Amino acid sequence: MKISHIEHIGIAVKSLDEAIPYYEGVLGMKCYSVEEVADQKVKTAFFKVGDTKIELLESTDPEGPIGKFIEKKGQGIHHLAFAVDNVDAALEEVAEKGVTLIDKTSRKGAEGLNIGFLHPKATLGVLTELCAE
Amino acid sequence: MKISHIEHIGIAVKSLDEAIPYYEGVLGMKCYSVEEVADQKVKTAFFKVGDTKIELLESTDPEGPIGKFIEKKGQGIHHLAFAVDNVDAALEEVAEKGVTLIDKTSRKGAEGLNIGFLHPKATLGVLTELCAE
Repeated sequence: MKISHIEHIGIAVKSLDEAIPYYEGVLGMKCYSVEEVADQKVKTAFFKVGDTKIELLESTDPEGPIGKFIEKKGQGIHHLAFAVDNVDAALEEVAEKGVTLIDKTSRKGAEGLNIGFLHPKATLGVLTELCAE
Repeated sequence: MKISHIEHIGIAVKSLDEAIPYYEGVLGMKCYSVEEVADQKVKTAFFKVGDTKIELLESTDPEGPIGKFIEKKGQGIHHLAFAVDNVDAALEEVAEKGVTLIDKTSRKGAEGLNIGFLHPKATLGVLTELCAE
């Protein structure tokens, strides 16, 4: 598997209305997109930083993955997403190396990317996403 | 403050001897440096990914910051480091905006960089480092 760059870093926040002013006003970044991803029960806000993005994630449902994450661990970094050429080929390759997958095949994520998650128990505690255009 | 890119992502691991083979063998990255940072009580391993680095952090002392982090939260993403032009000027600027600092002035970190940390309570749960050459 060839990872070209970190596609984005997913950060769980309680409120985009609170978080976007912090990222813009204090860190000097510019939010270029806000998007709801209904099947993940989140509203996302994106910022470009070098060749990487920051994806802020606000839960739209306490029972969704980000709602549960914040309840258990509080706000903070949620996942790391690596850019690969082909998500299905990469998922197959890491599975052959013994890594447990959350997604056995790719699905559509935010910004229309193909995405797939590896299980954090198999990745030394880092919830890891692979993604490609 | 102008952030040019994400300088690195710090990830707490129990053992570099376990983690380096995962990042190299499964994710296909190449460790280019292992360095001990005595005053932080860590041994670090670095990987370049696009314009960002991954910094794995193994504690050399259970009472050090990474030892305590792993005891409380387990292995996982520990901090996010943004590249700025001048760390002291950036620390002063964010303090003026009401952000609580861990480091009031810059100090030396891994790879000889000037670094300074903001407090995660003031940064929506993300332990945030600013760094510059």
